[in-house]
Amino acid sequence: MLVVPTAADVAAAADRIRGYVRTTPVVELTPGTFGVESALVLKLELLQHTGSFKPRGLFNRALTQEVPAAGLVIASGGNAALALLHVGKQLGHPVEVFVPETAPAAKVAKLHHYGAGVYQVGANFADAVVASEHRAARTGALLMHAYDQTEIVAGQGTVGLELEQQRPEVETVLVACGGGGLVGGIATWFGRRVRVVAVEAEGSPTLASAREAGERVTISPIGVAADALGASRIGAIAWEIAQRAVDEVVVVPGNAITDARQRLWDELRICAEPGAAAPLAALTSGGYLPKPDERIAVIVCGGNSDPASLSSSG
Amino acid sequence: MLVVPTAADVAAAADRIRGYVRTTPVVELTPGTFGVESALVLKLELLQHTGSFKPRGLFNRALTQEVPAAGLVIASGGNAALALLHVGKQLGHPVEVFVPETAPAAKVAKLHHYGAGVYQVGANFADAVVASEHRAARTGALLMHAYDQTEIVAGQGTVGLELEQQRPEVETVLVACGGGGLVGGIATWFGRRVRVVAVEAEGSPTLASAREAGERVTISPIGVAADALGASRIGAIAWEIAQRAVDEVVVVPGNAITDARQRLWDELRICAEPGAAAPLAALTSGGYLPKPDERIAVIVCGGNSDPASLSSSG
Repeated sequence: MLVVPTAADVAAAADRIRGYVRTTPVVELTPGTFGVESALVLKLELLQHTGSFKPRGLFNRALTQEVPAAGLVIASGGNAALALLHVGKQLGHPVEVFVPETAPAAKVAKLHHYGAGVYQVGANFADAVVASEHRAARTGALLMHAYDQTEIVAGQGTVGLELEQQRPEVETVLVACGGGGLVGGIATWFGRRVRVVAVEAEGSPTLASAREAGERVTISPIGVAADALGASRIGAIAWEIAQRAVDEVVVVPGNAITDARQRLWDELRICAEPGAAAPLAALTSGGYLPKPDERIAVIVCGGNSDPASLSSSG
Repeated sequence: MLVVPTAADVAAAADRIRGYVRTTPVVELTPGTFGVESALVLKLELLQHTGSFKPRGLFNRALTQEVPAAGLVIASGGNAALALLHVGKQLGHPVEVFVPETAPAAKVAKLHHYGAGVYQVGANFADAVVASEHRAARTGALLMHAYDQTEIVAGQGTVGLELEQQRPEVETVLVACGGGGLVGGIATWFGRRVRVVAVEAEGSPTLASAREAGERVTISPIGVAADALGASRIGAIAWEIAQRAVDEVVVVPGNAITDARQRLWDELRICAEPGAAAPLAALTSGGYLPKPDERIAVIVCGGNSDPASLSSSG
């Protein structure tokens, strides 16, 4: 049974996770920054605990469900694993995480800082999911999903709720999409009140492919942002939501993502990970063309990459 | 004649530079972060144009004074030079900057992105000041100072004004001190209304030395933060202000600064430069011991360092 969250679920999640997550700041850019004349606001969700938005949904699920003594288990491209280790530590639950062997070194190194319970298996996220399901079946741990569970999507939606409190005038929000937990949650919150634009990386267009086919399709994610946006298909929950509340899907090339990431550093000393630079790339590459007076928010949703991969000379 | 700015000058500066500078965001940390139980707010001034607070004062002076055709000239440890090149570009004035040969590569590389007008002279900031004064005398350019001019200090004070608008409940603010432009400006704004704590790096205690001697003394700045906090004595203006409006001076060791900088990265994916991590180091090293319920703001005032110098595994 597919339980799609409502805006009320997002509001309840915000109350539930308050005190566990940071209200992440927004910064308003002077017109012309990044060559964009529109009023542009960045929501700096990379300042969240563990460097991505993931704790929001995971706290929400862990605080909603009965957690067995065996604790919590998840498969992840890296960010959800980092976040769940943090959630487990805060709430006092044991945690096991499964990440693919291809996870970036910067994320794996951070994972190992938490100690035991970190397993690298398989070539991609889908392999890690299978491993996590087997493990949950064996130990009785509560299975957590990186994006495709009701409480997870509702928790990620609190990014939208917070943004609306901070900048009620925003008309359009650009959000990265992989499995769709974040964009699904944000679209759940805003409904038709705000234009929600999902931005995907060239090598992993899960939502764009589904839109084209009229149903969810399985792809082989590749490219610069495949660690964070590397789901092999859009989540079932996000797909339901996207059909009524995501206005547009933009697919951006890998080099536009790399360029946008460098620009965030040069202009603002923000060290975003590639996936989190995709929404800005939609603006800087012309993939999304705003009206001159459109009030736009860009979610910068993660910062777990090696800062040494930035050029410091910009 | 020493003209010390007033709070009204800071308010006028804020009006004058609006539209040229970013309102930099604050982030509130969950209690316990960095081992600090007090309610802690960071003001992320490193998101300012050119990666430091310096444009505030420089815009204020350039918009107050008549600028000759020869333009603007300054000596700088790096940040004020970057900022003045930006100011010149925005306002349409030619700019020349003098930085010491010891300026960090990350700053020098950024300077050269602006093209011509960048000179590296002498071993330290004081040498660069002499060169800038000679140059101004010869060309007729308006001499700008990195910290010791009335309009500069007033402009830097807008960091305090903004902070008070964002977080009126703050009782104590921790600010890095080198030449004292920033802490002098912030103390000018707050007067006795908020406790202002100046934080200096071990190798460059310009204000602590002056307090001990009862007058400004000349030191030889060394240490991890000497590029940004490398004035050889406290500014005359800042010294006047500090005697009535800076409550406390804390000197932190270099290793505490390096540690605080890494913690900002590990906890928040913030890439501060060493000088900008000094105020947090005062808290994490125990140099400043807050009361349990004290509401503290920490100014993170610059991000011009090589991100590769951070360990990404934290």
